[in-house]
Amino acid sequence: MATQPELEHTNKAFGYAARDSFGVLSPFNFSRRETGEKDVAFKVLYCGICHSDLHMVKNEWGMSTYPLVPGHEIAGIVTEVGSKVDKFKVGDRVGVGCLVDSCRTCQNCEENLENYCPRSTLTYGAKHSDGTITHGGYSDSMVADEHFVIRIPDSLPLEAAAPLLCAGITVYSPLRYFELDKPGLHVGIVGLGGLGHMAVKYAKAFGANVTVISTSPNKEKEAIEHLGADSFLISRDQDKLQAAVGTLDGIIDTVSANHPIVPLIGLLKSHGKLVMVGAPEKPFELQVFPLLQGRKLIAGSAIGGLKETQEMIDFSAKHNIKPEIEVIPVDYINTAMERLHKADVKYRFVIDIGNTLKPSS
Amino acid sequence: MATQPELEHTNKAFGYAARDSFGVLSPFNFSRRETGEKDVAFKVLYCGICHSDLHMVKNEWGMSTYPLVPGHEIAGIVTEVGSKVDKFKVGDRVGVGCLVDSCRTCQNCEENLENYCPRSTLTYGAKHSDGTITHGGYSDSMVADEHFVIRIPDSLPLEAAAPLLCAGITVYSPLRYFELDKPGLHVGIVGLGGLGHMAVKYAKAFGANVTVISTSPNKEKEAIEHLGADSFLISRDQDKLQAAVGTLDGIIDTVSANHPIVPLIGLLKSHGKLVMVGAPEKPFELQVFPLLQGRKLIAGSAIGGLKETQEMIDFSAKHNIKPEIEVIPVDYINTAMERLHKADVKYRFVIDIGNTLKPSS
Repeated sequence: MATQPELEHTNKAFGYAARDSFGVLSPFNFSRRETGEKDVAFKVLYCGICHSDLHMVKNEWGMSTYPLVPGHEIAGIVTEVGSKVDKFKVGDRVGVGCLVDSCRTCQNCEENLENYCPRSTLTYGAKHSDGTITHGGYSDSMVADEHFVIRIPDSLPLEAAAPLLCAGITVYSPLRYFELDKPGLHVGIVGLGGLGHMAVKYAKAFGANVTVISTSPNKEKEAIEHLGADSFLISRDQDKLQAAVGTLDGIIDTVSANHPIVPLIGLLKSHGKLVMVGAPEKPFELQVFPLLQGRKLIAGSAIGGLKETQEMIDFSAKHNIKPEIEVIPVDYINTAMERLHKADVKYRFVIDIGNTLKPSS
Repeated sequence: MATQPELEHTNKAFGYAARDSFGVLSPFNFSRRETGEKDVAFKVLYCGICHSDLHMVKNEWGMSTYPLVPGHEIAGIVTEVGSKVDKFKVGDRVGVGCLVDSCRTCQNCEENLENYCPRSTLTYGAKHSDGTITHGGYSDSMVADEHFVIRIPDSLPLEAAAPLLCAGITVYSPLRYFELDKPGLHVGIVGLGGLGHMAVKYAKAFGANVTVISTSPNKEKEAIEHLGADSFLISRDQDKLQAAVGTLDGIIDTVSANHPIVPLIGLLKSHGKLVMVGAPEKPFELQVFPLLQGRKLIAGSAIGGLKETQEMIDFSAKHNIKPEIEVIPVDYINTAMERLHKADVKYRFVIDIGNTLKPSS
């Protein structure tokens, strides 16, 4: 018989968990491990709601275990550090993103690409090396090896930092790796949600001319006037798409819903790059000829390594780049999930854990 | 009424042409333009038979015009140069590949990537800026702007140089551009035909560990013992494919027939690159998730620019890299085409134009 969640570890913890694939979140008592010698423990103050949380609570990717405490955009204040921790001290402002562990020995780990380590451990719903299941940031406390903890500069509000740890790094990393971070490039961003709106901000900060490509005409005003995009394309407007053929150096495609890819390839200049950061469920059809003709490429990219995540956070603080967020109390989570499902959020929900999650709630 | 081919230009020419989409090649009188001030005229001595010649003579890509004189792997000796030619003189050993013109002003042209110029002119079957249709190297003479003429070093036999001008550069260029030219990388080559066997040779010359992936078990011995590949995978052998998952830094896929792509993506390490240089007719199905998981990419690449083609020829001469060829007399062309269709050639037919094409034939 499995150990009760409250007794699995020494430190009491409290959060919200989904109990089954209905995905309804409710209060949940569990426990966190004792702070190990390389561990940083922190009080969670804010946690972003990522679209993948929605998939995970409903087991839509078939990999969920219950009870499931979601949340991998976590920010808070250090409460305890292990004896061998040298990067952090009590009171520091910190965060944890999608990963809490990796093998630390493979080539990806050696190259600071823990996100591509085949044995990395996800922040929630994954089996940790100690045999227990990891629990995320919809909870009052967190503990992780210091290697997986990010320092949040004073100038960056914790509630703004939280979503950067997944949504931010997911778009920042491919802009860097695929060299779409050079001033003067023309960069397209497909989809204007949690990821897309951050991609616009980073691309602008890198000096790009940014085109937002969206199915929703009503996002045009906001994309241009508020987020600073230079132009806007409605993805079903054939005439405008045709006029934009061959104009983009790269595209970051943030859309997880199934959608046509061939027109996006058409928008690329020769040697242009289409980088997918969302994973549509169905395969798409690809003709090779359009790739050959212009030496174009299609790639995927998934979050980022820890070193780059710290770089992204520091870059964001320096350039005052923050996500657009709606801060919610914890008892609003289930409503927020429904609204997220309908894409009714600009652009990220962040749970105010510190002020609203009480053991008595 | 169109001008007769013999009278279109001032200089008489003779070659073999297809007259319709049956694709049978037969003797053909036509003409070449007078040698312009920037032109190089040369006597054709050898011409390779590219797989695309087979598609073109039968109009399988729907873009052929007749009569059609194929051939874009052309090598010979300069017979006349224009008054403003400074790179070549009479007697020089030269070649022409897939292109005879481009706009010379677009960004691709400025970056020596004439092969991606949207207004480039193919060596045969294309409309030249003077309004006439270009004719290829299955003929006794050639004329082209010196910019599109390649110098062939003395140490490289002309019959060996000819196939390099298409088959060679088509695989050399992506190995370079996609940085698969670093010693110690593990590179896969899909398909062991005209292109594939050259890809093995270049990858080995760059210091790669080379795996040939083929549908034909009977190619293993030759791939390893003769061409120098390090290992061989039969693409339908699921067990061996499974054992090779995640082992390759890059793959050059030379196969034009429809074939599954997903297993090839599986063979790539994280950050691996699958480059297609053949263009299967049907679109293939692509799941995004395998790309995301390892930041992998799929790209296309088409021949190469003139500067790089010269570099490839010089590299080949320096490293003694030559295609495996079967030299044939011109009256064997139609049989060669049939054999090429059945992949019955190791690995390239080269027509001995100089010794076997006679006006009386």
